[in-house]
This record gives sequence, C-alpha cells and structure tokens, in this order.
Amino acid sequence: MFLGRVIGEVWATRKVADLDGHRLLVVEALDQGGPAAPMVTPVVAADPIGAGVGEEVLVAFGKAARVACGGDGDFALEAAVVGIVDDHQLSEEGSA
Amino acid sequence: MFLGRVIGEVWATRKVADLDGHRLLVVEALDQGGPAAPMVTPVVAADPIGAGVGEEVLVAFGKAARVACGGDGDFALEAAVVGIVDDHQLSEEGSA
Amino acid sequence: MFLGRVIGEVWATRKVADLDGHRLLVVEALDQGGPAAPMVTPVVAADPIGAGVGEEVLVAFGKAARVACGGDGDFALEAAVVGIVDDHQLSEEGSA
Amino acid sequence: MFLGRVIGEVWATRKVADLDGHRLLVVEALDQGGPAAPMVTPVVAADPIGAGVGEEVLVAFGKAARVACGGDGDFALEAAVVGIVDDHQLSEEGSA
Amino acid sequence: MFLGRVIGEVWATRKVADLDGHRLLVVEALDQGGPAAPMVTPVVAADPIGAGVGEEVLVAFGKAARVACGGDGDFALEAAVVGIVDDHQLSEEGSA
Repeated sequence: MFLGRVIGEVWATRKVADLDGHRLLVVEALDQGGPAAPMVTPVVAADPIGAGVGEEVLVAFGKAARVACGGDGDFALEAAVVGIVDDHQLSEEGSA
Repeated sequence: MFLGRVIGEVWATRKVADLDGHRLLVVEALDQGGPAAPMVTPVVAADPIGAGVGEEVLVAFGKAARVACGGDGDFALEAAVVGIVDDHQLSEEGSA
Repeated sequence: MFLGRVIGEVWATRKVADLDGHRLLVVEALDQGGPAAPMVTPVVAADPIGAGVGEEVLVAFGKAARVACGGDGDFALEAAVVGIVDDHQLSEEGSA
Repeated sequence: MFLGRVIGEVWATRKVADLDGHRLLVVEALDQGGPAAPMVTPVVAADPIGAGVGEEVLVAFGKAARVACGGDGDFALEAAVVGIVDDHQLSEEGSA
Repeated sequence: MFLGRVIGEVWATRKVADLDGHRLLVVEALDQGGPAAPMVTPVVAADPIGAGVGEEVLVAFGKAARVACGGDGDFALEAAVVGIVDDHQLSEEGSA
C-alpha cells in the first residue's frame, strides 16, 4: 500500500464490463522530498469509499484492491483506494 | 492500473498458445512532466477492446488482465487494456 | 521482502472494513547509499507485531502480508511488517 | 509483459527442483531511448519456446509465466519468455 | 526472477511464525553498469538452498518463492533464492 494524493479522475466509455460503475481516480504517490526522489507514474485506482480530488488516500493493489471493491477475486481491476487519510506523522530520523 | 498511450504494436509468430488471437499493444505511461520523472519501460498489453495507436488507455496487470481477456486465471498473459480513456482531468495542486 | 525503517504512522477513519484494527506504519526502504540510488516511495504496511517508529523492519507484500495479518487471502491489504530486525550485516564487496 | 532482448544465459547447478530442465535467459528491457530513461535490472526468464541470444522477446511474469512453462501454478519460477517478436512498430507521437 | 549477489544477512527475533527457521539473505541486483543505471533497493530473500555471502544467486518472488520454501502458498514470505549461479554469459550486443 502507498500513501498518495488524488490528483484527478479518468472517464472511459469503452471499457471491460467489470469497470462499470467504478469511479476511477488518478493517485500520485506523496513525494517525501528526498534527494533524487524519482516521481513514479501515477496510479489509476477504483474508489469504493468516495475520496475527493486533493485528499490523501491509501491505495492497495492486486487481490486486496479487488476485495476492497467487493469483487470475488475474478475482477478486472488491480488498484483501489482503501482509506482516506485523516492524518499521518512522519519522523525525520528515518530518512537519513 | 495506469494511464498510458498506445505507441505501437508487436507481432510474434512463435509464442505460447495462450497468446494466439490476442492483439498485443505497446503502451507507454503518460508522463506527467514532473521534475526528474523517469520514463518507465513500456508495457506490452493484450487488447480485448480495440484501442488504436495514439489513444489513451487504462492498463491493468495480473489476474485483472487475465479476467479482462476472458481467461479463467490460468492464462499466459499479465497485462491488458481494460479501458479507452475519453477524458481525464488532473489537478495541478496534487503534484507539489 | 525488503529491509526498511519505520518512519511514521497513518490514521484513516474512512476506510474499507478489512483495515479496522490494523495499525498502519509508513516504512522507508533502507538506503544503501550507493551512487545515484533513487529513493523509492515509502510503503504503508499493516503491523501485526508491534514495531515502533525508528525500528528496522522486514516488510512483505501480497499474499504473504495477508497471511501475516491472519487473513485468509481475501483481505484488503497487501503490505505488512513480518519481522523486526535485531541486526543485519552487509558486505561491502557486493555493492561494486 | 514487456519487450526485451535476450542478452545472455544463466547456469545454476544448485537450484530448487522446479527449475530443472528449464533454460534460463537474461532479458533486458528494450530501451526506448527517451530522456533520462533508467536502465532497469535485467530479468531472468525461463524459456519454453527456444529464443536465442540477441532475439527480441516478450516476457510475462507471475502466474502467466508458470502457465507458459506448463506448471499448474505451484511452480518456483515467475518470469518466462512467452513470445519471440517478429516485428514491432512504435509510433513517435506517443513518446512526447 | 533476477540475478543478484548475496551481500548480507538479516536477523529478527520478533517475527511472524512463518519465518522461523528461514535464513534471510540480503540480495542486491547485479549492476550491468549501463549509463544512468539506478541502484534498486536490495531484496531480503529466504534461502532454502544454502547460498553464501558473495555468491551470485537467482531470486524469485511471490508464489514461486513460497513454493521454493516448501510452503503451500499460504506463507508469510514472498522472495526466495531459487538457484546459486555457476556461470552466466552476457552478450554486449543486447545493451545498445
């Protein structure tokens, strides 16, 4: 799972049926601002809990994402928002 | 899942039987243009919905891809186009 | 699995039910300090064994993480602390 | 799946029994030559279809790889060559 | 799977029960020395075959790793040494 921020939304009319009715958010990993930190490609995640653009979220992959969306495992998606972050606290010591 | 653009196609005569009849597209992650953004290796994805070169697509991995292609899970592919993007909207605020 | 350091904690009130009762830690990969070493995005991992901020931990992904948290495989998380490191010894020879 | 080139071969006498009889190739992702493109670590893939050094191949991961090698899913490998590429065509437009 | 070198060992007293009795090695991907090659984070892998520090090994992930360690799939680890490399031969042609 990773900590990200919702930076947008995606709309697709032509899609596999399993994605019908799922809101698809674009989530960017929170940049810790370290030296030489590469920006990774944003993830597109289904959102079963109603996150808004700008909110911090927790994203899970694979089976965890399908379970979060109510699928039985045979489901054509593999990333989902599983939590909306109230707060996070990061220590400075760990980034040395 | 990630947001990409179809940049090409691949043809393979000698291949495992499971890939027969599947169009194989080369999809590049959409670059958000951030600082120091690394270009990741393009993905080769099976295409069950008919995307064209230049179109923006949503790509899923693993079991999600096999399900999208009608497989029962025991299937020798692990990336597939699951949606053709009509539109996406990205906020500037999220990329700080 | 990777070797990381706990750098913080995340709190989410609105979340999928499977995450209830799980402490969620932010874990950063230990940087080996090599040249051009990219800092990867910190991982958010459930913690079934009680690691504290600043401790070195071993993190596992996917099914391994669900098993570590007592899940039966159908569980909406995919990263977990599986060990708290007493000690590690790294050779200099391997990093050439 | 990704598009790579076979750059070598690996021999291991001491190995888990599941790897017996599998030729193990080292495959490097095809570099698209974009700016700041990182070279990713080459993958070691089992080869059920007879690719040669220098050939362009399609590599799949995880269950897809085990299925390609005739495994039933409980198999100690997770990367395999699934196709030998005859040709690929990449558009310049997609890499902006 | 990837080709790595054992650069160290990890000891953890407090860990999930599934890791009891497994030697845990730190394995670094072999650097091909290409331009701008990023050093990836070393992997911690269980070792069912007795590799020593400094040896070149083949590492597998996920279910492949659990199978290599004799697990039945429900096992809290996801990386394992599956082979000790006698020799590998890499072509120069493939790295252009």
